[in-house]
Amino acid sequence: MDPRIREHAETIVDHSIELEEGDNLVIHMPAEAEDLAVALHEYAGDIGANPVYLNNSQRAARAYLRAHDDDFELPSHELALYEETDAFVIARSGGNVSEKADVDPETTAAFNRATRQVTQERLSKTWCLTQFPTQGHAQLAGMSTEEYENFVYDAVSLDWEEQHEFQQQMVELVNDAEEVRIRSGEETDVTMSVAGNVALNDDGKANLPGGEIFTTPVKDSVNGEVHFDLPLYRQGREIEGVRLTFEDGRVESFSAERNEEVLEGVFDTDEGARYLGELGIGMNRAIDRFTYNMLFDEKMGDTVHMAVGAAYPETVGDDNEVNESAEHVDMIVDMSEDSVIELDGEVVQRNGTFRFEDGFEEA
Amino acid sequence: MDPRIREHAETIVDHSIELEEGDNLVIHMPAEAEDLAVALHEYAGDIGANPVYLNNSQRAARAYLRAHDDDFELPSHELALYEETDAFVIARSGGNVSEKADVDPETTAAFNRATRQVTQERLSKTWCLTQFPTQGHAQLAGMSTEEYENFVYDAVSLDWEEQHEFQQQMVELVNDAEEVRIRSGEETDVTMSVAGNVALNDDGKANLPGGEIFTTPVKDSVNGEVHFDLPLYRQGREIEGVRLTFEDGRVESFSAERNEEVLEGVFDTDEGARYLGELGIGMNRAIDRFTYNMLFDEKMGDTVHMAVGAAYPETVGDDNEVNESAEHVDMIVDMSEDSVIELDGEVVQRNGTFRFEDGFEEA
Repeated sequence: MDPRIREHAETIVDHSIELEEGDNLVIHMPAEAEDLAVALHEYAGDIGANPVYLNNSQRAARAYLRAHDDDFELPSHELALYEETDAFVIARSGGNVSEKADVDPETTAAFNRATRQVTQERLSKTWCLTQFPTQGHAQLAGMSTEEYENFVYDAVSLDWEEQHEFQQQMVELVNDAEEVRIRSGEETDVTMSVAGNVALNDDGKANLPGGEIFTTPVKDSVNGEVHFDLPLYRQGREIEGVRLTFEDGRVESFSAERNEEVLEGVFDTDEGARYLGELGIGMNRAIDRFTYNMLFDEKMGDTVHMAVGAAYPETVGDDNEVNESAEHVDMIVDMSEDSVIELDGEVVQRNGTFRFEDGFEEA
Repeated sequence: MDPRIREHAETIVDHSIELEEGDNLVIHMPAEAEDLAVALHEYAGDIGANPVYLNNSQRAARAYLRAHDDDFELPSHELALYEETDAFVIARSGGNVSEKADVDPETTAAFNRATRQVTQERLSKTWCLTQFPTQGHAQLAGMSTEEYENFVYDAVSLDWEEQHEFQQQMVELVNDAEEVRIRSGEETDVTMSVAGNVALNDDGKANLPGGEIFTTPVKDSVNGEVHFDLPLYRQGREIEGVRLTFEDGRVESFSAERNEEVLEGVFDTDEGARYLGELGIGMNRAIDRFTYNMLFDEKMGDTVHMAVGAAYPETVGDDNEVNESAEHVDMIVDMSEDSVIELDGEVVQRNGTFRFEDGFEEA
């Protein structure tokens, strides 16, 4: 076994979920990630935790969803499993990331609605979403399998304590600020208030890799235009060149250079999808390229991302409204060139270099 | 996908577990059997049942067991899963059947003791143990993978209604009898009472393939000698040429031509291991060869098997004692040549041909 797989498992167990003796653990990953599951079982045995190993097979899920009449039930045995679980680990690792391309999106939506209580139960536990590098995801990223393995293991094996300290500088600056302004190129200039809301430090716990700081804009405070110059994947389709115009928080106009109708579907979901639910700043410089995988893309160094749709309640202050929506769609702006982030009128990042880093003056 | 895999899944769902709309189902199989799991998900979706898919990875189990200090706990989340489950399907399909060869048997025993409540909960549900043909099991059988696939699919795809009728003739003969005598070659001549006990028809439900009828000898009634001329596997070791001598039910002497000390370990487990817990008669003629896999071997046409150790309570009449033991070890006698089964002094099978079959007089 590649020794980096055991290191990855150790990071998950010790850092991300802080597994303890007697903990009930669910390990949920596709067959392709069996090596990681084996390493996790080894650490679980060593610690004295109790693993249950679910096979997250996209082929099986596809077969089930296509055969069903869409009148789904809550699977009470799966719910009971998670009710008694302390922690769970889920890994993306599709052999073919398009495995569910021929499942009707309405079937998937009906299934998600019926099993929502299971999802909520899972999210109430200590969890970690991570990645096992497979040929399918390497292909999606346009990389050889070995190069992709290096990319994944570099991104998950940061010194997370050091990364926490690095990111904490930005967390504190944002928490001290009231207004954020983001400018990039000719087409992006947007301002928003974060007054009363909370910025959090994503240092590799619920997401591994971590590597962003994130908060939520005050709902009606967003004004300006954004050109998201990095693409995103949605229902197996690539949306490119998204442009949004905000007025008092609401997306009043939008366009996309490719698959605009998919974007339109997002905004048609509900009114909450017209408002931002997240502002994130990517700070994981081991993620130095775009791989069509939001778990990595949103943490990429020298980027910011904004999500339309549901806000994370823990980032919203008591006096502010938590935006609600069935959607949460992240979109990314490259901040490495001709770009600044300003807090209360002061530049805190210029062309990808933070104020608290060497070279800021020359950036 | 090999169309026989879908047929296999259909047999499991329709015949073995009789899955119904709304049933909670657990599918428990190694990654190697993913095709069967996919087909089962398809039928589960079609019926409207709710599957949870566990990865029965021997590599993960080995890693966990070896890393643990043997002070195992009951995994309450796994127990909760099975408490809420209506049916489960488990498939043998190891890529390497020796995967746990370097796990200390005492560790496995400690784990089995700690998780006994889970095992009991599972066995209280509707279940099916079946086989997915892998290279590992083909190798164990000394067969090419394709030949082994043919062997497995022939054995599981009998007309089970017809097979039930065929076997029921023998069930009724045994249920009407008081004494069974089995003679084979120079070395096997054993008598036992089955008075008051119950013979059952294994027609492909809890075991797929099925294909035996089975009952339990009255505990203290077994007298004589048996030479088990087919080998068995125990803790990854082959025991060959077992000879047992019974006096008033108890194994008073034993020998084996190979790995006798493993056999000795069985008899040293507890006093119940010295008594028979089962007499079975193999009647699945699609199983025409020995493959070192008891799921198949004990159903082989023209064989009988006896198990030392725990009896199945459902085969023991109210007035008879249920033999208890931590062991249940099946051993097989080839009855195809120079052999007879007698019930109350009357020959019911001669050289593998039953009284109710053509050719019995000439056999």
